[in-house]
Amino acid sequence: MGEFDLIQRFFTWPTPRAVMGVGDDCALLAPSAGMHMAISTDALISGRHFFANVDPQALGHKALAVNLSDLAACGARPVAFVLALALPEVKNAWLEAFSKGLFDLAQTHGCELIGGDTTRGPLTITITVFGEVPNTPTEAASHGVATGALLRSGAQVGDDIYVSGSVGDAALALRALQGKIALPESVMAAAKARLEWPKPRVTLGLALRGVATACADVSDGLRGDLGHILERSQRGAELQWDALLSLLATRKNYPGAAPAFDAVFGSDFAAQCVLGGGDDYELVFTASETKRLAVTQAAEQSATRVTRIGKVVSAHGITLMDASGKVLPSLAVGDFASFDHFSPG
Amino acid sequence: MGEFDLIQRFFTWPTPRAVMGVGDDCALLAPSAGMHMAISTDALISGRHFFANVDPQALGHKALAVNLSDLAACGARPVAFVLALALPEVKNAWLEAFSKGLFDLAQTHGCELIGGDTTRGPLTITITVFGEVPNTPTEAASHGVATGALLRSGAQVGDDIYVSGSVGDAALALRALQGKIALPESVMAAAKARLEWPKPRVTLGLALRGVATACADVSDGLRGDLGHILERSQRGAELQWDALLSLLATRKNYPGAAPAFDAVFGSDFAAQCVLGGGDDYELVFTASETKRLAVTQAAEQSATRVTRIGKVVSAHGITLMDASGKVLPSLAVGDFASFDHFSPG
Repeated sequence: MGEFDLIQRFFTWPTPRAVMGVGDDCALLAPSAGMHMAISTDALISGRHFFANVDPQALGHKALAVNLSDLAACGARPVAFVLALALPEVKNAWLEAFSKGLFDLAQTHGCELIGGDTTRGPLTITITVFGEVPNTPTEAASHGVATGALLRSGAQVGDDIYVSGSVGDAALALRALQGKIALPESVMAAAKARLEWPKPRVTLGLALRGVATACADVSDGLRGDLGHILERSQRGAELQWDALLSLLATRKNYPGAAPAFDAVFGSDFAAQCVLGGGDDYELVFTASETKRLAVTQAAEQSATRVTRIGKVVSAHGITLMDASGKVLPSLAVGDFASFDHFSPG
Repeated sequence: MGEFDLIQRFFTWPTPRAVMGVGDDCALLAPSAGMHMAISTDALISGRHFFANVDPQALGHKALAVNLSDLAACGARPVAFVLALALPEVKNAWLEAFSKGLFDLAQTHGCELIGGDTTRGPLTITITVFGEVPNTPTEAASHGVATGALLRSGAQVGDDIYVSGSVGDAALALRALQGKIALPESVMAAAKARLEWPKPRVTLGLALRGVATACADVSDGLRGDLGHILERSQRGAELQWDALLSLLATRKNYPGAAPAFDAVFGSDFAAQCVLGGGDDYELVFTASETKRLAVTQAAEQSATRVTRIGKVVSAHGITLMDASGKVLPSLAVGDFASFDHFSPG
């Protein structure tokens, strides 16, 4: 099968929102009035971001999901994407499943494939995604940029810090798949679903426009991604130990619940998963105390659980606190150090 | 060196045209009033699109050039790009040279790097480029899409067919580098420069707005890329044999000129290079006979040679004609078959 047949067969869908989609030298997009274009690009590489034998449908889903997650973090509404796909070989069954995973998620979010490039090479999926955000600043986010987007830079001292959904379970699944730990079968299935089928929090991101002061997606680990917000906002954070532990769904759903999980792995390990694990694609965000009701409403509107985990403070760095407000020794995240694509190993 | 240090050191340049550049979950672009966004993506993969030992400065240049060439084909003005870079290892000297080649070309065209993704993996450079085209159709191009972009679909029966610059020399250099043919040293240097340092015809593309009826860039070979125009326009072409041969700079500049080239390789081989060769990044376009002066002016404005090579006809397919108007037997392009990334070999 040639390149054009392959595109025609597996990657051609209607593009009603684009001025022009696949088939010319460029695609053409017309941003809506009063909107900026939000743009992000992320590549998934075989052996680095996924196992070569991963379910291709899950891979198609995840390749787009990690990009939509960046739009969600900015409060952008997805519009379109382009796909650069390098394939070691053309296998119809693989391409059908990959394409199904990709387009099912694309359709859920009204995000059109408007262009791409396919070539033979080591399996690599690079997606660039386009969304829209209002071009007028909101009251909640008073960063120096003239945009209604959620940025990393707007966190204020005294703001609450929140995380959506559950965090750390994907990293736990990865370690189980690598044979480093053993998980009961039902726990493993749930954790693996978190790793392979992340749900980008697009609806929550949209609902947080005008509510959150800063936002990032949790892709490289909570400590690292919250760290980006704190660095860009020049602030620090105090996090509640119990709230952090509650983010790990695996621990709550472990047979015998949290005490049983802690008996096997220890609560420090749970905190390491939460703070250092990656591949969660949740949102971490900050909002003024006066917006607690608005945050609850945004969570309800988007049917997404949101957990308050701490506060923004002026002193830099991240401090862990117990329920009585006592400072805990800082945690060595070790094996769960925030994912850096150029760190050794 | 970590991912963030690497980006900071080698890939951070000012982004005055973007609302927000590198550093958040998304970049933000504000298209100018009355403009559509033109978008294209192209990946270069080591061993497939370039030799692993290629000059990294040339590679940085070419990775952006092949993308700018798609904007040129649409008559779009470059604005910005995002870069997804997979590197097998971090070598400062390599990255410095790559980054220089990339940003020298980016600055020439006022095209800003606004985001990206760097990761460890087989050397792959994927760029998505953004340009602007007017959102109002021009008189010259009466395709059904409401855009001022040059499209592939507007060629009319009776239109002249033109090609910019020289074509086929890059493919010739590739075959010499592969050891399939031998070229004199000075000829090889010039041909290799065409392969490694393509010049995207951005200025010509802009000058052809309102002049050309259809346009494509010559990346996979003239026969294939003109074929895209003809297919989308539902037309055919008659091409002048002599005009085609004149496109191969190597033949004109061969020691002893064209007769000497033909004595070594044959004129059929020259035509195969022109029709089937790839990696030229010239423009092939059509324009009404009434626009001959306007085409000449566009060529002069952009200091780009333009050659008229034939006419658009109603019968489908490409016919070759000699100077007396006699139809020549169609040419087997063989080894120079239009480049298809999924064909065998």
